[in-house]
Amino acid sequence: MIKPVPDSVLDQLKAALGDGGWSADPDRLAPKLVEWRDRWRGTTPLLALPTTTEQVAAVVRICAAAGVAITPQGGNTGLVGGQIPQGEILLSLERMRAIRDLDVFDDVIEVEAGAPLASVQQAAHDAGRFFPVSLASEGTASIGGLISTNAGGVGVLRYGTMRAQVLGLEAVLPNGEVWNGLRRLRKDNTGYDLKQLLIAAEGTLGVITAAALKLYPIMASRAVAFVGLRTPQAAIELLARAKGETGGGLEAFELISALGLELVCRNIPDQRLPIGGEHAWAVLLETASSEAGAAEAAVERLLAKALEDDLIQDAAVAQSEAQAHAFWALRENQSAAQKPEGPCWKHDIAVPVSRIPAFLQRAGAAMQAVEPGVRIAAFGHVGDGNVHYDVLGAPGLAPEAHAALRDEAARRVYDIVAELDGSISAEHGLGIMKADEALRLKPAAEVEALRAIRAALDPGRIMNPRVLF
Amino acid sequence: MIKPVPDSVLDQLKAALGDGGWSADPDRLAPKLVEWRDRWRGTTPLLALPTTTEQVAAVVRICAAAGVAITPQGGNTGLVGGQIPQGEILLSLERMRAIRDLDVFDDVIEVEAGAPLASVQQAAHDAGRFFPVSLASEGTASIGGLISTNAGGVGVLRYGTMRAQVLGLEAVLPNGEVWNGLRRLRKDNTGYDLKQLLIAAEGTLGVITAAALKLYPIMASRAVAFVGLRTPQAAIELLARAKGETGGGLEAFELISALGLELVCRNIPDQRLPIGGEHAWAVLLETASSEAGAAEAAVERLLAKALEDDLIQDAAVAQSEAQAHAFWALRENQSAAQKPEGPCWKHDIAVPVSRIPAFLQRAGAAMQAVEPGVRIAAFGHVGDGNVHYDVLGAPGLAPEAHAALRDEAARRVYDIVAELDGSISAEHGLGIMKADEALRLKPAAEVEALRAIRAALDPGRIMNPRVLF
Repeated sequence: MIKPVPDSVLDQLKAALGDGGWSADPDRLAPKLVEWRDRWRGTTPLLALPTTTEQVAAVVRICAAAGVAITPQGGNTGLVGGQIPQGEILLSLERMRAIRDLDVFDDVIEVEAGAPLASVQQAAHDAGRFFPVSLASEGTASIGGLISTNAGGVGVLRYGTMRAQVLGLEAVLPNGEVWNGLRRLRKDNTGYDLKQLLIAAEGTLGVITAAALKLYPIMASRAVAFVGLRTPQAAIELLARAKGETGGGLEAFELISALGLELVCRNIPDQRLPIGGEHAWAVLLETASSEAGAAEAAVERLLAKALEDDLIQDAAVAQSEAQAHAFWALRENQSAAQKPEGPCWKHDIAVPVSRIPAFLQRAGAAMQAVEPGVRIAAFGHVGDGNVHYDVLGAPGLAPEAHAALRDEAARRVYDIVAELDGSISAEHGLGIMKADEALRLKPAAEVEALRAIRAALDPGRIMNPRVLF
Repeated sequence: MIKPVPDSVLDQLKAALGDGGWSADPDRLAPKLVEWRDRWRGTTPLLALPTTTEQVAAVVRICAAAGVAITPQGGNTGLVGGQIPQGEILLSLERMRAIRDLDVFDDVIEVEAGAPLASVQQAAHDAGRFFPVSLASEGTASIGGLISTNAGGVGVLRYGTMRAQVLGLEAVLPNGEVWNGLRRLRKDNTGYDLKQLLIAAEGTLGVITAAALKLYPIMASRAVAFVGLRTPQAAIELLARAKGETGGGLEAFELISALGLELVCRNIPDQRLPIGGEHAWAVLLETASSEAGAAEAAVERLLAKALEDDLIQDAAVAQSEAQAHAFWALRENQSAAQKPEGPCWKHDIAVPVSRIPAFLQRAGAAMQAVEPGVRIAAFGHVGDGNVHYDVLGAPGLAPEAHAALRDEAARRVYDIVAELDGSISAEHGLGIMKADEALRLKPAAEVEALRAIRAALDPGRIMNPRVLF
């Protein structure tokens, strides 16, 4: 817990924000002080609710002068605790959600940081364009939070993470200065790219107040297939073929284990598999093309050849949008389907695609060593090398006994990830949950450099001081 | 000119590098001490030629301890003087050009920084993959230099600049520590992304020794078209349509002025225009698809509709690879065709695509004000908002008189670029040529932050001290 914020600072903040620009009402604050899965709870003396970039700057200047810490919070959908204050001033941009501009020649949308992702997707759609970042919490997750955590989700395979969508940023730096970097250029080589530092900084290098984001054309054809196969190695071979066959048009390539499919069918209503037979693994793939019929044709060619070569066991191509949704539900319900099975060790990791089979093999053995009989429900964005490595308790084991082994299991998984040159946080960030493990596993030279950068830009360490290094 | 390097330091460097690992031979040094257009000449007491990352680290450690400056140089193809030493130790990685690995499942090539771009393109091709960065100097330009300047070239429209290709870096930081960040992950959210800082840092934040770069599938069909139209506004409307029609398959969209075409036909042998008639502007576009025939079909649809709507005046689609090359020659010979016309003011700028017409209009008026009768030979990667805004002297004006107005003209162009939220260096970097202008035009808050980062990572300012801020 940090030291209490002096009343004089609170008074200055209230004056700068004006009536309606702040709250200390426990009911108003309550939903912002608990992580949505209730893993972290926090406190704050004041919720700042600015409506302009200048007000954000005033808040940061006041806090910087007084050495008072700030926790910026977006839609409070984070999974690693980075958004929950422990006595810091809580800063929310929920009243800054304007779409400032959209230009179809620049293929750019300029939006304030408090806007929810879904509003950007909708604005793009209304203009005949596509914004490709998509994830389960898109109705709530804010643009500022998504940039600050470099969000992933579906669509990364073709379009990249949030980082790849950012053309420019407006931000308040830790000294309270407004940086207008709201460029909308595809090329700009005039020194270090400051925006790249703010992306994924989890609020430690400033407060993002607005962003210029890329837009894309809407595709004319789309195909979704569900494939049964024997091994993860077969899946990555199919992935390589699919990338070649679709020429970069592959939008999703998701791996699901047989256990994951079994749990979905058991625990979620109205789910059924599109193919019969016994398959140790399944792949859900989606591809899109600007050419009418081309997506379907590419998938048909890919699957016919893969069946002929015995690379896959069976496959179904969705014949309607409803069927495509039903295929996707099998993937999207993976987490929900685990819930009735008791506590689950969860790991959001990435390894090089070629090393996914080795990771699954080694991690599986390690998990059995930690707890004999564990049930591995791995799934994820395998096209990105990103596995959600979820592990359920051994049948019959008390839930508390499984939960008690969580940290030991995580350490074993992360050690294997590190040996395979992977990442212990593919898309969720470090927050306060994984910072220590990252510190243990990252090269010392890198941590030293990142700490020097942070100290240079925020010498008082006022910005989200408990997260990262 | 910096202070002379002490003999004791030179002795330490020679010992660390061993026989053949350094040179002070004037003949060996000569080609590295002059910029290829002879705009900058330099001096160095020693050329370091390491063969391993450890040797690079030893050089940096020795220099850091003694406060001696280093200028890293790639293929010496830079255009802004950043690679020419003025008394610094000159560091070349020309003996570090191994391709360390290539993996078709990871779609990654891991290569040492001294490797020329062409060798990476070739290795990718041999493995059935494509590396998309391509530029005129690709036989000489090194991977380390291309990353350090975030090189552009053709292909940016679809694949992005060099930055977008870098998955991981190995580098020696200014304190002489080796940072192994050679990851090959598509997702990794574990703190600030240090590699993003080293990209485009022009050698000021360390020495890149190796990189992991993305590979892509080879396309099955390709179409090249040459289009005559009336205005830049028509060109950007055609661009928007082309992006939609090809669904991201558009690989190049280049604008050329009528004067530029006239000069090519006059000054370069064997050039002829694919279409007749009078056109104030021309567009060269290329699109590719993984679907056989799809690229050609998309271009035919695009052009037929644009003709019908009177958006364009005339168009030709290349019917063979030879014809496609002939079309491209008209674009690639733009610079060469200017040479016989005398000195040329050159500006490598970018503005938002939607503001290209406004830029051309305002810059044209400004240039006429600086020198009545100037001839504007603008061309460039208009799909990226990048214009090579080249200006030839008024007919009959003495070459020296035109050259004398270069700086005034540049300042006027850059002011207009700044007013339009553009970049004064789209793809060439700042080096020593444009640093002062960037300093004048960049937001003060940004320059302050960039300087703080540099001082934090290189407190002795030993890495390429004269470039950037």
